[in-house]
Parts: sequence; structure tokens; C-alpha cells
Amino acid sequence: MGREGKEPDKESRLPLRVVLVSPRNPLNIGAAARAISNFGIGELRLVNAYDVAFREARSAVNAGWVLEQAREFPTVADAVADCSLVVGTTALGPRELTHPMRRLEAGGRLLRKHLAGAPAALLFGSEKFGLGNDDLAHCHWLMRIPTREEHGSMNLGQAVAVCLYELIRSSAAVKEAPAARHRASAEEEERLSERLFQALLDSGYVPERTKASSERKTRQLIRRLHLASKDAEVLHGMLRQIVWKLSQ
Amino acid sequence: MGREGKEPDKESRLPLRVVLVSPRNPLNIGAAARAISNFGIGELRLVNAYDVAFREARSAVNAGWVLEQAREFPTVADAVADCSLVVGTTALGPRELTHPMRRLEAGGRLLRKHLAGAPAALLFGSEKFGLGNDDLAHCHWLMRIPTREEHGSMNLGQAVAVCLYELIRSSAAVKEAPAARHRASAEEEERLSERLFQALLDSGYVPERTKASSERKTRQLIRRLHLASKDAEVLHGMLRQIVWKLSQ
Repeated sequence: MGREGKEPDKESRLPLRVVLVSPRNPLNIGAAARAISNFGIGELRLVNAYDVAFREARSAVNAGWVLEQAREFPTVADAVADCSLVVGTTALGPRELTHPMRRLEAGGRLLRKHLAGAPAALLFGSEKFGLGNDDLAHCHWLMRIPTREEHGSMNLGQAVAVCLYELIRSSAAVKEAPAARHRASAEEEERLSERLFQALLDSGYVPERTKASSERKTRQLIRRLHLASKDAEVLHGMLRQIVWKLSQ
Repeated sequence: MGREGKEPDKESRLPLRVVLVSPRNPLNIGAAARAISNFGIGELRLVNAYDVAFREARSAVNAGWVLEQAREFPTVADAVADCSLVVGTTALGPRELTHPMRRLEAGGRLLRKHLAGAPAALLFGSEKFGLGNDDLAHCHWLMRIPTREEHGSMNLGQAVAVCLYELIRSSAAVKEAPAARHRASAEEEERLSERLFQALLDSGYVPERTKASSERKTRQLIRRLHLASKDAEVLHGMLRQIVWKLSQ
């Protein structure tokens, strides 16, 4: 198992088949497997993989459950036989646009909808040539990662990772608050305010006539910092030393 | 230049510094450079790169403008000196969560906002250890790609690609209609309807008394198919042959 960790529950996995057609580089097969494990979505299928590449990828240390369970098929038709939606990926529009083409953001949403109820296949072509016309004939529509026109073609492993990320991406998470640090308590903040104010008094920063308002402002300043508990403790120690020095 | 294509306009590029700290594998440096070129965002900076790795990545065929322009810095402080926001990437929450942590979906949005007005750095740690505490000290907050807890750590090149994709991702594109195929014209559809109806008549499918309604239904059926022009032409040829045969 190694670095790829535990296999996710079969029940919770979306029925996505990640189909690599004629992959040549074992590093790319391994990278696709790693992305599947990272995001916990999909199973790996290979069509016409260069034998040596698949064997090398499989024998790599920590190849993990994705490669162990990967299946080989002689043709694209066999690899997608159990899928009711087949989506091809492509760098740019093919010369003859006979398929509807969607950007990943839009296509990913459609694919996710389909996966909620039925299996789907996502096809990736070979590193050098992409998907051929015979492969495209099995696709209901095509999806493209929004790369620059001047350099559209992505590395295979990176393309798989980006597509799977889009599929597990949560639009709800955009509004998610950051995970809270262990925030300083009101008591810690108050102790720190008092210590800082003492330093300001002792250093002559605060004239007697504005004492009350200065103390209030100091307290507010400390509150605005939203300090972590640890940071408040460190600052308190620094100020204690400063106050001690000022009193000498 | 080669495979990485033309460099995008400097003016249109967001002021993002993609900082790799202590990268060890030339393939990963190359993959980060390729993602930067694919998505047309960012410039590459290296801190404490393993010399051989950087040289190998640079000497690779078609390394392109990203690696040519990549700069090396002795420390993280130097690499992020011109940035007013520094964001660290991490696989999972560090043991001591002293920084706010955001998921990529939420963090990406904040980062994009900042980049609209000022430079920012996105830090990636070494393949083996990620970012160390000394590196994290330069970060305003941390961002994590939403991978599974059981296998959180991504390949460096794939992590860079996923983060950059999130930054150029367009939420507007979710609603984008697919690129139109060259649709059949009304005239082509009508010709096809007529030919199909003729075949239905000649084959005895349509009884004389329902002739009018059948013709209408046939026309509607063809319209519902939203045929591509090419497909309409092919079908028309098939039916022409069938009609000819029926008339023998």
C-alpha cells in the first residue's frame, strides 16, 4: 500500500473509469494512478498500453491499490462497455469538430451529474498523439482543459490530476472559513493588553491626561490582532521583560 | 521554444511567483514549468534547488521560456521579497496549526483577488518533506488541495498544475454552452426529412390515411436530432440508396 494509503470505500466512490489509451510512459501511468488515489475517485483502465510501461509502473515501489486493480482491455469499446457516458479529453478542438466540446468547468459538472446515477468513462489519449478518430467515435462529447492556445497540450499525469480535481472540487468550499487557529482567549488578550499598557506608561508614551482613552485603545489594538494563543504568550513574555527593564 | 509555445504577453500575466523550495527531481521542475506555460500564469522561482536537477531540467529538449526565465534564490526571504502576499501549500494540516488554512477553492479566490493588484508568491515544498517550519514562517496563510486524508501528498508537478488550474478557472464557464458543431441547415434537414418520408412511404410503413400527420411527425423527428451538417449529408446518402432499392 505504502504512500498511496488505504483504498477508499468502494460504495463511496463515484463510478468513474479513467481510461488511458495507448499510454507509453510508465511515469505517466503511475502519475494517473496517484491522482486517482489522491482524490479518491475513479478506477484505472488501460487500452493498448505499451506492455513494458505497464509492468514498470506496476513494479514501482508503493504502486498501491490503484495499479493493482487497474485492468487492461484490448479495445476502447471493451474498456467503456459498462459506461452510459463516454467523454474524451483533448488539448484543443480537433480539426473536424464533429463532437460537442465543453470546457472542463462545464463538462465536469455534467460528468458529476451523470456519475451520481450511472458509470461514465473519461478517455485520455497517448502522450504523443492524443485520442485518434477511432477513439473519438466512442465519445458522446469532448472536454478540454482551458490551457493557452499557444501551448495547449498538457502532460498526461497532470491532465488526469486537473480533471479529477475538477470532479471532486466543491463550489461550497469557496465560502468556507479557514480552519481556526487555536485563538487566544479573552483572558490572555487582556493580560497582554495590560502588560503592553504598562510598558507604554513606563516608557512615557502615554501622558497622564489621556490615560483612560489610551488604555481603551491599547485593548482594542490587541483584540484587532486576532492573536493565536501561542503568539499571545510569546508577546506577553517579551513585554514582561521590557517592563522589567523599564523599571530598573 | 518548442512544445511550450510562445511566451504570453508579460502585461496580461498575473504577477504570481511559483516558488519551488528545495526541489530534487528535474522532472518535477520541468512539470512545474510546463504547467506555468500551459495555463499562462506565473513565473518560476527556485530556492535551494539541487543544482544537478535544475541543470538537467534546463537542458531538456524544449524546456522553453519558463525555464529560461526561471530565477534561483539563496533563501525563501529573497524569493518572496517583492510579494505582498505569501501562500504556502501543504498536503494536510501541519501538527501545529499556527497559520490559517484554506482549501484550494477558497484560497484560490483570495489569491486571485490579490493578484489583480499586487504580486503574490505560492510556495511548494520539496518532494520528500514539503515546506519546513522556517519556510512556513514567511507565509501569511496556507492552502491545501482537497485530497483524501489517507493519501494527501501529491506529486509536485501535479500539485502545481492543479493550483494553477484553480487560479485560471472560470466560474462563468460552468454555464458555457458547448462549442457549436457545424449544424445542419434547415434546408438540409428538410431534404433529409423528405427522403426519409419517401422511404417510409415506399416501404409501406405509412398508411395512406395518416400520410399528412406522418409527414409532419417525420419532419419533427429529424429536427429533434440536431444533426451536424456532415451527419445529415451521410444519412441523406444512405436513404437515397434505400429509396432507390425500394423502387426496384
